[in-house]
Amino acid sequence: MSSQPNHPTLLIPGPIEFDDAVLHSMSHYSESHVGAPFVATFGETLSMLRKLFQTTDPSSQPFVISGSGTLGWDLVAANLAEPGDDVLVLHTGYFADSFADCFETYGAKATQLKAPIGSRPQLPEIEKALKEKKYKLLTVTHVDTSTGVLSELKALSELVHRVSPETLVIVDGVCSVGCEEIEFDKWQLDGVITASQKAIGCPAGLSISMFSGRAVKTFQARKTPPGSYFASFKNWLPIMQNYEAKKASYFATPSPQLIHALHTSLTQILSKPLAERFATHKATSQKIKKAVTDLGLKQLASDPADQANGMTAIYLPETVKAPELLPNLLKKGVIFAGGLHKEIAAKYIRFGHMGVSVTDSKRDDIDRAIQALQNGLSEAGYQKA
Amino acid sequence: MSSQPNHPTLLIPGPIEFDDAVLHSMSHYSESHVGAPFVATFGETLSMLRKLFQTTDPSSQPFVISGSGTLGWDLVAANLAEPGDDVLVLHTGYFADSFADCFETYGAKATQLKAPIGSRPQLPEIEKALKEKKYKLLTVTHVDTSTGVLSELKALSELVHRVSPETLVIVDGVCSVGCEEIEFDKWQLDGVITASQKAIGCPAGLSISMFSGRAVKTFQARKTPPGSYFASFKNWLPIMQNYEAKKASYFATPSPQLIHALHTSLTQILSKPLAERFATHKATSQKIKKAVTDLGLKQLASDPADQANGMTAIYLPETVKAPELLPNLLKKGVIFAGGLHKEIAAKYIRFGHMGVSVTDSKRDDIDRAIQALQNGLSEAGYQKA
Repeated sequence: MSSQPNHPTLLIPGPIEFDDAVLHSMSHYSESHVGAPFVATFGETLSMLRKLFQTTDPSSQPFVISGSGTLGWDLVAANLAEPGDDVLVLHTGYFADSFADCFETYGAKATQLKAPIGSRPQLPEIEKALKEKKYKLLTVTHVDTSTGVLSELKALSELVHRVSPETLVIVDGVCSVGCEEIEFDKWQLDGVITASQKAIGCPAGLSISMFSGRAVKTFQARKTPPGSYFASFKNWLPIMQNYEAKKASYFATPSPQLIHALHTSLTQILSKPLAERFATHKATSQKIKKAVTDLGLKQLASDPADQANGMTAIYLPETVKAPELLPNLLKKGVIFAGGLHKEIAAKYIRFGHMGVSVTDSKRDDIDRAIQALQNGLSEAGYQKA
Repeated sequence: MSSQPNHPTLLIPGPIEFDDAVLHSMSHYSESHVGAPFVATFGETLSMLRKLFQTTDPSSQPFVISGSGTLGWDLVAANLAEPGDDVLVLHTGYFADSFADCFETYGAKATQLKAPIGSRPQLPEIEKALKEKKYKLLTVTHVDTSTGVLSELKALSELVHRVSPETLVIVDGVCSVGCEEIEFDKWQLDGVITASQKAIGCPAGLSISMFSGRAVKTFQARKTPPGSYFASFKNWLPIMQNYEAKKASYFATPSPQLIHALHTSLTQILSKPLAERFATHKATSQKIKKAVTDLGLKQLASDPADQANGMTAIYLPETVKAPELLPNLLKKGVIFAGGLHKEIAAKYIRFGHMGVSVTDSKRDDIDRAIQALQNGLSEAGYQKA
């Protein structure tokens, strides 16, 4: 039984529904950010992130900083790129445009490789681009929250390491870490940035990231100082290393309550094999996608290989309008999200299926949501052709 | 009766002890960051901040962004200063050095006006400095958390407006907003940045600030784009304006739980006249400072006019060492902080007295802390000379 008051089930692609124990940790009594009990909690949290990202290389560096997922872009753009550096941004939706904006803010030159909506740049085009110019970084949105398009990281990283081995491989994993497989070491990734409120299952307010030893060395070899103060590796690197070594350290005050909640959610996630977690998300996603297809609806991501396992972006029938359907779904107790990709925002909705709504067998969130969608469409006069 | 488990009382200059209702709000069930219920909560929170800062000028602009207090420096340095601009930083401790660092990161030229430890730059020196060079901004740390030195804002702002009327007056109010009087409009301030975890009484994780219409216009008149992405007014201004108008808006995902907690703490603070709150903090501070003097101890801030009302920085007797005294105080159930000013860190301790520990008459935190300090010093062999 949940101790949370009765409320509509939040099934947007983040924030997601949270476990009772995680929310309970949010109300932890006040602690000193440099006192031994909290330092131990923060240190353990950083160590657990290594397991979540599947890295055992001691030169990998986790960061947890108060902020939104967006702050991760600043971490990358202000520390790993220098003014004038070329950066290749693979575009699968709204979030590549913003990441490119962020690079431009710090003086890097972002080249976007775009694909039609619902698709992703293909390896041969990426290879061609990498051969045409020397890129300091390549960025890929693992799952674009605006389109539900999943990128394939393993083959991509192999390609980059083969064609342009000095290029750092940076992953925007905001909508993927915790529900999509990520093998940080094996896939030779250099940076994965994410946030707390999606598949990691902790309330919003934390920027979470992992960088490779190679990325840290790239930072250390900078000719210019980092472009940001609050997002500076120079300021945060010793702090993160100290906390993980259980030594008090201060640059800016962390949020003990959010760190406790993250500690709780990571403990829950790591109590079972990660492979099992990813398989559960995949199976649930398949079930949802089948239900969508059975309703005669199409997804933005048309190729099953490009479909995310933690969310589904669904084109509405032409006769059904999101501003009418979504409030009706809310009446049925489920909250879906509207479209976010500006070119087609009114034409689709997004269904998030991450975390406890998927993994907690005592919950019936997903079945209720599918049922609500079926009924909502039917009440809007839609019938499968 | 508190619903928080028995724990040592946190009396450092932030984070502080939190009220039960505030901590309860931290575990609010998950909500969409763009759904009507949360949008209303966030909008009300922004409007309440206007009351806390005592501004009724509709051109004033509140911001609440996921981050630490430190992020406020980036907001100022990346939006209100442009590369090459001169900035005058009044130095009363550790935090002016860091703010100056932040300005340099974004290309502004920071000139620090320093004072001996425990004191603050005097008006005649400041007037002289303002006449020597044209400064785009002047910054002052209202209360420096490292020294407990309180700056006088009203006379300072009058001076700036008289001598250098185009210079923006920016206040670092991280350790003052909520316990020291601040009249944003009357004192003609242009920016006050703060954080959630001190006298505002909400867990850490939020950067909170108020900027004048004049500051916003200064931003809008920039010749260069803002130097930060995550801390960019360009990205946040429309978002804050939309939330306050109760319209959903998206740049980066806010933390609904932290915003709920802030809403609760602001509702509590504003339920009584602010003048009463400031008077209570002052009276408690006087009592603590008298106890410190009665013990024969000196404060870093030697002039009573320079002493903060929400914290006290106390020189230890030469025979008493902080690494022995502080753990003994912890055994007695109270947590004080060590020194932070690098030149004299080992020689003093800090006692924070803000928020519910001061205003909640059902708590005996302050009396217990004074008693613990007396006993702790005595057990360390100290006797008043």
